[in-house]
Amino acid sequence: MAQDHSSPAQPSTSPPLRIALAGLGTVGAGMIRLLETNADIVRARAGRPLEIVAVSARDRSKNRGVDISRFAWEDDMTAMAARGDVDVVVELVGGSDGPALTLARNTIAAGKGLVTANKAMIAHHGMELARLAEAAPAPLKFEAAVAGGIPVVKGLREGTAANAIERIYGILNGTSNYILSTMEATGADFSAVLAEAQAKGYAEADPTFDVGGIDAAHKLSILAGIAFGTCIDFGNVECEGITGVRAADIAQADALGYVIRLIGMADVETGGDGTQRLLQRVKPCLVPKGHPLAHVTGATNAVVAEGNFSGRLLFQGAGAGDGPTASAVVADLIDIARGETSAPFSIPVAEMVAMEPAGSGARTGRTYLRFTVTDRPGVLAEITAAMRDAGVSIESLIQQGRVSEGGEVLVAMVAHEGPEKNIARALALLEASPSLTATPLVMQIISG
Amino acid sequence: MAQDHSSPAQPSTSPPLRIALAGLGTVGAGMIRLLETNADIVRARAGRPLEIVAVSARDRSKNRGVDISRFAWEDDMTAMAARGDVDVVVELVGGSDGPALTLARNTIAAGKGLVTANKAMIAHHGMELARLAEAAPAPLKFEAAVAGGIPVVKGLREGTAANAIERIYGILNGTSNYILSTMEATGADFSAVLAEAQAKGYAEADPTFDVGGIDAAHKLSILAGIAFGTCIDFGNVECEGITGVRAADIAQADALGYVIRLIGMADVETGGDGTQRLLQRVKPCLVPKGHPLAHVTGATNAVVAEGNFSGRLLFQGAGAGDGPTASAVVADLIDIARGETSAPFSIPVAEMVAMEPAGSGARTGRTYLRFTVTDRPGVLAEITAAMRDAGVSIESLIQQGRVSEGGEVLVAMVAHEGPEKNIARALALLEASPSLTATPLVMQIISG
Repeated sequence: MAQDHSSPAQPSTSPPLRIALAGLGTVGAGMIRLLETNADIVRARAGRPLEIVAVSARDRSKNRGVDISRFAWEDDMTAMAARGDVDVVVELVGGSDGPALTLARNTIAAGKGLVTANKAMIAHHGMELARLAEAAPAPLKFEAAVAGGIPVVKGLREGTAANAIERIYGILNGTSNYILSTMEATGADFSAVLAEAQAKGYAEADPTFDVGGIDAAHKLSILAGIAFGTCIDFGNVECEGITGVRAADIAQADALGYVIRLIGMADVETGGDGTQRLLQRVKPCLVPKGHPLAHVTGATNAVVAEGNFSGRLLFQGAGAGDGPTASAVVADLIDIARGETSAPFSIPVAEMVAMEPAGSGARTGRTYLRFTVTDRPGVLAEITAAMRDAGVSIESLIQQGRVSEGGEVLVAMVAHEGPEKNIARALALLEASPSLTATPLVMQIISG
Repeated sequence: MAQDHSSPAQPSTSPPLRIALAGLGTVGAGMIRLLETNADIVRARAGRPLEIVAVSARDRSKNRGVDISRFAWEDDMTAMAARGDVDVVVELVGGSDGPALTLARNTIAAGKGLVTANKAMIAHHGMELARLAEAAPAPLKFEAAVAGGIPVVKGLREGTAANAIERIYGILNGTSNYILSTMEATGADFSAVLAEAQAKGYAEADPTFDVGGIDAAHKLSILAGIAFGTCIDFGNVECEGITGVRAADIAQADALGYVIRLIGMADVETGGDGTQRLLQRVKPCLVPKGHPLAHVTGATNAVVAEGNFSGRLLFQGAGAGDGPTASAVVADLIDIARGETSAPFSIPVAEMVAMEPAGSGARTGRTYLRFTVTDRPGVLAEITAAMRDAGVSIESLIQQGRVSEGGEVLVAMVAHEGPEKNIARALALLEASPSLTATPLVMQIISG
């Protein structure tokens, strides 16, 4: 059991876990605030105090609303790894490479623990860092890298550890979900809602990582590694963001009984020859209104894990923000203080499997398609003929009114359950058509 | 780090975790099936094999659909604790006392780990067992005792460990939720749905523990202990089940924008003098249709934890069943195999605080009240006068048609946000009234 249980009602006198903190942005400041505000609770649960001894950031004098004068200062953050008075380094700097990665490598090489919120670094270098950590040995923890304050890394590493995970999927990017659910609530178009979100500080000035699906793809690749015991393979996440979703699509989905969500999804398919392939996909999807993910609005994140014994589990909460992210970072520190020592990705890196990507060849599904076409005779016939020739069976077809002065018209349809490759074939047949004025939007329909 | 990370791609050769299993009902059989089906995954994640060596149950020869011939058999389950070839005992017998408790005490006294799904035993004797486990020291784990397959004990012990928990609440009894959501979907009355649930095996022949709220109260008292660091105090859970909820209440709630759910809720209130008191309450409540818990239907469980940094977190999944419960039991075993050693209730028992119960004196809320009255002049005036005299402000009042041949009429109302003690005072004023033909139903309205 943990330290010092025998001294009744006395605070533990175990030595503190000594922390160096790199990065003093909102999350770093949130972590300092948390360790002050919840000092007693954290000490009781960790079995010993958690104590920041050194900090580093770009600008020492910036006002962050927290007192950093009592911590040692390092101009060069990568030097923190070498400090003799530090047990764990917390990396909140960001960036998949550069100083963050150097600091991470140095920290682990020095046999110290590393706690990070850096999803890009774990998505790109998680295997290398975990291998180093297992060899050191040193703890490597990254709860805050996925879905902010939701303990879903722990949920998958430990909570569902008894299960073969059949599928994981969820809402992994708060900005995109905020934009989609605001479009849903207001009827406004993507660009208007994005501009408003940027003005309010809910979206970055350059929103590409969020609305383009890359942030969600980082998180998905990490979750897939834990869930399936596969080597992290960020490079093979199929990734499409929400920039192509129009207000008309959301209205159309609503009329059909769905909402649109940016869904990150991963599973493993087994081919006829027994070969296993990993599907990882970030895409806007139609979610039935009765599905738990349909009720996830605003910047909230939610992850569904389907285990072969647990059944469907849902983890939901704030996906970002200084408080929730600091909560996840400190939970990792408490685990380290308690002496938790299992493998960063649940199984040792040496046992993780490198899997080929699945592609969409073998997949079937019900699909929503929306075309933007010129308003002239024969367009519908052209589209429906391409569907027929590709073997796509149309369940319902909706032609909507003129949407622009240029005479642009939207044609939406739902295709019956069928192979995804047939959809791709139909789109290829239409690719050269002068009737289509924009790339068609294709969205999977999630089953209940 | 965990064992044996240095031998690349080789299965671990660490010694197995040797398990004695007491109780071979559906969960016990499920656990045997899980360890067979997922043997490779479990071994990889645990760092060593999990191996059942001995079993015990009332009837050795019963067909359970699993082969138990390869395990040693113990007629007396309490003898398992003394076996030299056992590291951990899994207790799936049930009952707060009796053989289960004896086995638990003996196991821990022998320095072996105990994993249990027994919520009644933990609710009644969790403090004693945890104290013994900390002194031994020996692991004591009970994920399966709360909310079946949902890793919410872990979520609170570890995932939210950095937070002061402000409130926990949720749907903790699958049978009650099945009945309420079926009443909602079909319009049928309680007794009809209960009878159907019993016929289908979804409800026990004696459903008192479930529909009376006691099962939920067991779970709530355990969660409260972990969340607030308070000694488990099952005896002071305010507990009211769903037997008083009528189809008319569900229809009325629906018209007002709510669904009815049996909610277990706990928080700590701080009095003017700084005294902290623990509120624990299991009661049917009105939940706004936009709230995540409103979408939880069937036998599903869901727990909301509100942390001062994490914000609102939701954990949802199957609250019972052999697969989900076995998933939770084996997750605990994997934790033990990995060497996880922190305190059973997150902080040592010696640091847990015994708190007085809060009662409802200081509470305020919006409230739904429903009276069953005789159909005669002056009844409404009598009720509204009692409300006025007790200081209860009525937000809306609904008189419904005659519902029985005896001339019984339902009167429902929503009271504005106000002190709960005023509601109690109004009910006391009406207690002796001959106009009321049954105990009024009072339900808190959960805010969004």
